[in-house]
Amino acid sequence: MLNERFLKQIDFITEIDKLKNIFRQNVIIEGRRSENDAEHSWHMAVMAILLSEYAPEKIDVLKVIKILLIHDLVEIDAGDTFCYDEKGYLDKAEREQKCADRLFNILPKDQAEEFLNLWREFEEVETPEAKFSACLDRLQPSILNYNTEGHTWQKPGVNKEKVLKRNMIAEEAVPTFWEYITEVIIKDSVAKGYLKE
Amino acid sequence: MLNERFLKQIDFITEIDKLKNIFRQNVIIEGRRSENDAEHSWHMAVMAILLSEYAPEKIDVLKVIKILLIHDLVEIDAGDTFCYDEKGYLDKAEREQKCADRLFNILPKDQAEEFLNLWREFEEVETPEAKFSACLDRLQPSILNYNTEGHTWQKPGVNKEKVLKRNMIAEEAVPTFWEYITEVIIKDSVAKGYLKE
Repeated sequence: MLNERFLKQIDFITEIDKLKNIFRQNVIIEGRRSENDAEHSWHMAVMAILLSEYAPEKIDVLKVIKILLIHDLVEIDAGDTFCYDEKGYLDKAEREQKCADRLFNILPKDQAEEFLNLWREFEEVETPEAKFSACLDRLQPSILNYNTEGHTWQKPGVNKEKVLKRNMIAEEAVPTFWEYITEVIIKDSVAKGYLKE
Repeated sequence: MLNERFLKQIDFITEIDKLKNIFRQNVIIEGRRSENDAEHSWHMAVMAILLSEYAPEKIDVLKVIKILLIHDLVEIDAGDTFCYDEKGYLDKAEREQKCADRLFNILPKDQAEEFLNLWREFEEVETPEAKFSACLDRLQPSILNYNTEGHTWQKPGVNKEKVLKRNMIAEEAVPTFWEYITEVIIKDSVAKGYLKE
């Protein structure tokens, strides 16, 4: 017998199909169309499998993957906020909290709590898993920008200083990522004109 | 110092961006555009987190998620083969093996082997994790078809018998999914004309 619990889970699974329509600022490499949050989340989850060895302390890879798979779900109502849009950031937390309250509560109570906690953990950036996830959330779009002649970095107001600041969390949290982002991606992008000095 | 291992991992991560351009037969709910493999993989990985409790034997959820995240990567060269295309299935295995050999070997040897083994495990459908993954790979497009007036099921040659046969693995592997697919999705879809009797 199909119970209420299963049907709630299916309702949630159906609802989150909407993440495939939430478009980000960066584009995918071939075809240069905007990437959506579902694709971004998938890409980072695979990166977590491959790159967890670079976390300086032991991390729970399953937890990192869960965080990455669900961290952008709140954008279903709140939309994507461009990371260099200072005005957009003013009410980002409020918009996202409102979506979290609606969306996660479609789930049975225990799973609503689990997802809410995973999302909060990501937002608070305090645990090793949240810090590692945050670093992947910088590295993944950096790789796409690097391979699309700095697509997002060509937008008004973006320069090397801002990109460095955005990625700075990796300096301590995942030094290998920081070295790659600064010494390869940013250095080469400035040299090639993908990113303003 | 960035070593060769890290740079191989980055090459692979860059290469698999192509999965976002491999389009499936089914469409997403809002907007009804073709779903791509990256979105499909993301959706199933979230489903695995939520629905693992319905596996009749204990399963390793991390392994299931890894399988789901990478199971369609071989379609980057081989393309998507429509599950009701009998002709396409004739050389599917050969096309996909060729892609697996090229793609996974971009990775460092140990990770190339891990991904190859995960993909083989999925294809062989013998372990509890592979069976559970296969059932999600039926349930996810069924949910999308059910919510888009049977989009894919309207194609020539598709009928209730074929959809039942395609989903039959769930009867033993995940009886709750089987009950939902047959008693809710298929029954209602036939009644509403989304699927031919």
